[in-house]
Amino acid sequence: MRPNKHPQLSLERHSRKWYNGRMTSSQLAERIGATHQGTVVELSHVASFSAASAGALVFVEHPRFLHDAIASAASAVIIPANSEIPADPSAAAPSALPPKAFLRCSNPRLAFALAAEELNRQAFCEGGIDASALIDPSAELHPTVCVDELAVIGPDVRIGPRTHIGPGCILLSGVVIGSDCTLVARVTIYSGTTLADRVIVQAGAVLGGDGFGFVPDPATGRYHKFPQIGRLEIGSDVEIGANTTIDRGALDATTIADGVKLDNLVQVGHNVHIGRNVVIASQTGISGSSILEDNVIVGGQDGLGDHVRIESGVILGAQSGVPSKKVVRGSGVLFWGTPARPIAEYLKELATLARLTRKKRAPAS
Amino acid sequence: MRPNKHPQLSLERHSRKWYNGRMTSSQLAERIGATHQGTVVELSHVASFSAASAGALVFVEHPRFLHDAIASAASAVIIPANSEIPADPSAAAPSALPPKAFLRCSNPRLAFALAAEELNRQAFCEGGIDASALIDPSAELHPTVCVDELAVIGPDVRIGPRTHIGPGCILLSGVVIGSDCTLVARVTIYSGTTLADRVIVQAGAVLGGDGFGFVPDPATGRYHKFPQIGRLEIGSDVEIGANTTIDRGALDATTIADGVKLDNLVQVGHNVHIGRNVVIASQTGISGSSILEDNVIVGGQDGLGDHVRIESGVILGAQSGVPSKKVVRGSGVLFWGTPARPIAEYLKELATLARLTRKKRAPAS
Amino acid sequence: MRPNKHPQLSLERHSRKWYNGRMTSSQLAERIGATHQGTVVELSHVASFSAASAGALVFVEHPRFLHDAIASAASAVIIPANSEIPADPSAAAPSALPPKAFLRCSNPRLAFALAAEELNRQAFCEGGIDASALIDPSAELHPTVCVDELAVIGPDVRIGPRTHIGPGCILLSGVVIGSDCTLVARVTIYSGTTLADRVIVQAGAVLGGDGFGFVPDPATGRYHKFPQIGRLEIGSDVEIGANTTIDRGALDATTIADGVKLDNLVQVGHNVHIGRNVVIASQTGISGSSILEDNVIVGGQDGLGDHVRIESGVILGAQSGVPSKKVVRGSGVLFWGTPARPIAEYLKELATLARLTRKKRAPAS
Repeated sequence: MRPNKHPQLSLERHSRKWYNGRMTSSQLAERIGATHQGTVVELSHVASFSAASAGALVFVEHPRFLHDAIASAASAVIIPANSEIPADPSAAAPSALPPKAFLRCSNPRLAFALAAEELNRQAFCEGGIDASALIDPSAELHPTVCVDELAVIGPDVRIGPRTHIGPGCILLSGVVIGSDCTLVARVTIYSGTTLADRVIVQAGAVLGGDGFGFVPDPATGRYHKFPQIGRLEIGSDVEIGANTTIDRGALDATTIADGVKLDNLVQVGHNVHIGRNVVIASQTGISGSSILEDNVIVGGQDGLGDHVRIESGVILGAQSGVPSKKVVRGSGVLFWGTPARPIAEYLKELATLARLTRKKRAPAS
Repeated sequence: MRPNKHPQLSLERHSRKWYNGRMTSSQLAERIGATHQGTVVELSHVASFSAASAGALVFVEHPRFLHDAIASAASAVIIPANSEIPADPSAAAPSALPPKAFLRCSNPRLAFALAAEELNRQAFCEGGIDASALIDPSAELHPTVCVDELAVIGPDVRIGPRTHIGPGCILLSGVVIGSDCTLVARVTIYSGTTLADRVIVQAGAVLGGDGFGFVPDPATGRYHKFPQIGRLEIGSDVEIGANTTIDRGALDATTIADGVKLDNLVQVGHNVHIGRNVVIASQTGISGSSILEDNVIVGGQDGLGDHVRIESGVILGAQSGVPSKKVVRGSGVLFWGTPARPIAEYLKELATLARLTRKKRAPAS
Repeated sequence: MRPNKHPQLSLERHSRKWYNGRMTSSQLAERIGATHQGTVVELSHVASFSAASAGALVFVEHPRFLHDAIASAASAVIIPANSEIPADPSAAAPSALPPKAFLRCSNPRLAFALAAEELNRQAFCEGGIDASALIDPSAELHPTVCVDELAVIGPDVRIGPRTHIGPGCILLSGVVIGSDCTLVARVTIYSGTTLADRVIVQAGAVLGGDGFGFVPDPATGRYHKFPQIGRLEIGSDVEIGANTTIDRGALDATTIADGVKLDNLVQVGHNVHIGRNVVIASQTGISGSSILEDNVIVGGQDGLGDHVRIESGVILGAQSGVPSKKVVRGSGVLFWGTPARPIAEYLKELATLARLTRKKRAPAS
């Protein structure tokens, strides 16, 4: 194996170190609203049964998996309300096992997600800024910020407490990021973009890029770039998928409200407004100036024209299309197809077409 | 706040500085074909009303917005031909305002776009190449080229006057880029790619990647990579969106003619030819060896099979599909659906299906 | 032209050098199962006719192109079984040409692909690791590994013989890569990902990112991130396109079997399993926990819901959709549309709809 050629860089880089959050199982139970049983143990991370080691928390949705959980190397198990714990849990396991904590709750899956959030919140990085990161002197980083290898932080950038800027991220001038955010790696953020708190951005995402706006010159048939000088405002608790692109507004702002979740390879055009807790699956595209109200759910590969309004609580099935300027309304109603219509209607039309096609063929056979 | 650990790098980096273009309002009026009225002022950038400051140019499409423009901190306003300027513009504003220039023209939106182009053309970077950029000694960069942090410029690359290579861009060996281009950030360009002048490439785009070509071996069922060793030739005044991918030709060339505008997350396959002033919206995919003639407009999420020909002036609606080898013809005709057909036909078919579905249901109710 | 400012870095960087593979035409003929005729020459690369130079191998699929091949500067030509070589090949060419080798075989296109693979396999890099790459001291790289500019190799990464890590690639902690792989540039690989041998990854791809999994809290309407802590296992001879994203499993693994080819901008969700020699064209999306069995062919922009099973040998036409939990079955059968159905059925339905639409219009005209 080849020795590393850059001991001076690596040494300093290596002095940066991540620590898992640590919490007792009883503290964690209290935070996630679970009832604690068994031994109080120290926890540092969540895991699957097979990958679990000391300090790990696993979860069980059905009592029938409890035996496997007990047999794992995990230190604690989230169990559903109706589970019976064996009097001596180690008796249920094939070999000697460490004592375990049990966290009983009504929604184990949600409890597992909340537990991971709690433990992640306690995780921290010692050492701060990698020696290879390039930080403009005018940038203001909270002392608890962690910046990884070869990140570039431009002039007048501001970053809040405990935010983690992964390797290769590029923050152009004036970007503002709140607390407890994670930019995993190689994220690019243009000027004029703000992220609030607890935002997670997966690798390769491009935030605040120029929107697609051109003005045709009738005399020449050529298109001239309309200035894309607006802002992108991203709320708290937002997650943005890998290689997703969100354009900033042309003159005003594109806005993504609190709690929005965007999958990979999603496109959000300029001046779009996305409401709270909207969920958008992969490869969906939203054209300029469209509005998605709170709690909308959008399937994969959906296409929304410009100036569309999807009203609160609508569910759009995968591969649906909404033509420009349309309004889609109906909380909890599932729409499907292009143009998107209530699924009952869509399915009836499919059935009608199939029936008529068979009928036509019948006499000929 | 944490002090920067790399004063020597940052210092040198900081000695690079961008300057806005500067022009008097009367010079600019002449360049964009507008009539100048009011005070001659110095201009440096375009802005929205709310973000405007001294040196800013704003625009008004309708006279009813003129009052707001006058009340802004902008130094100049583009106004439509039919606007009446108040005798004393400052009287129309709530407080003391700087004197303003008015640029009267028939198409304010186009004038605003042209003005931004003029001002951008005057912008320049002092200091050239960031200390952290890696430039191969065999690369030839014009002295006015600007290279940002951590860009990698490979052997035999050539870059023309005033081109700006943003942070984290990677230009593999032999790439040729003309004058006045902007690669915003983290753009990757493979060998065999040429860009002409005034090309803008948004972050994350991949230009000249290997096309998707494999030869099945009937004896084994395995696919073997067909060499992808052709070229990618991009004309002048092209814009390419964030995370868009354009493959180079397998043996010959993929070509993108002058004035083409590609949105984010577009895919262009190997050996495709795109004509002048073609506009393609987000998430559209164009398969290998297809041809789009001049002035074609392609909506979002369209899918074009291989060896398709879209003739000059065709408009393809969003989410449409064109099967392999098809020809679509009709300048100014809007096509829709899969397979793409004239929109009148498409809408009639939708209506027929809805009517037949209702009819069938009627007796049952 | 501006001199490079970093002689110390560039010098070391420049000491790394790529060498083409070199092989005699008779050796190569033997490897690819062709019959050798003419002069034995040394070969180093494949090329098109127009780009060919000494050492180049070109190919001819039809005898009618043989004259052009002979007239090129290539050193050798792959020809189909039924080609007649002129007694004096140079007589067929307009000017003095170097002596040529002829490699006769039944499938010239496949032979050309195999020849490129053979020559690439002999190519090597002298010098190893660029001075600007950041390698964690705990990473284990085989001495023949090549690492380009500004790549970041995290703790406990392992990389096998002759693998090439291109510029700007980021390998997070614990990534394992086999032998003879190529990561072209700016590839990001998350922890928990393994690549076997001869894998090619185009620029901008993101491997092993967090899947899109959230648990709604009914009490608040908010979504909480379900831990995405599983693995991504990629087999041998896989190719992954530019800006494609493949998520790792939530708790278990996403798996991509040997010989899979993914085009650009493809999305593969968490816990998906893709079988051997599956080919997936650009912009297709595969939702979580779906299974594609061996030898499936998937067209561009297809959308597969979650928990779908596409059985062995199915062919899905472009822009097709498969709803959640559906099974698609039929080796060699071409499916089309949404929901995907056999193409004969799909085309009949299209025809029915067109006929009924015309009929309705007829009386009105």
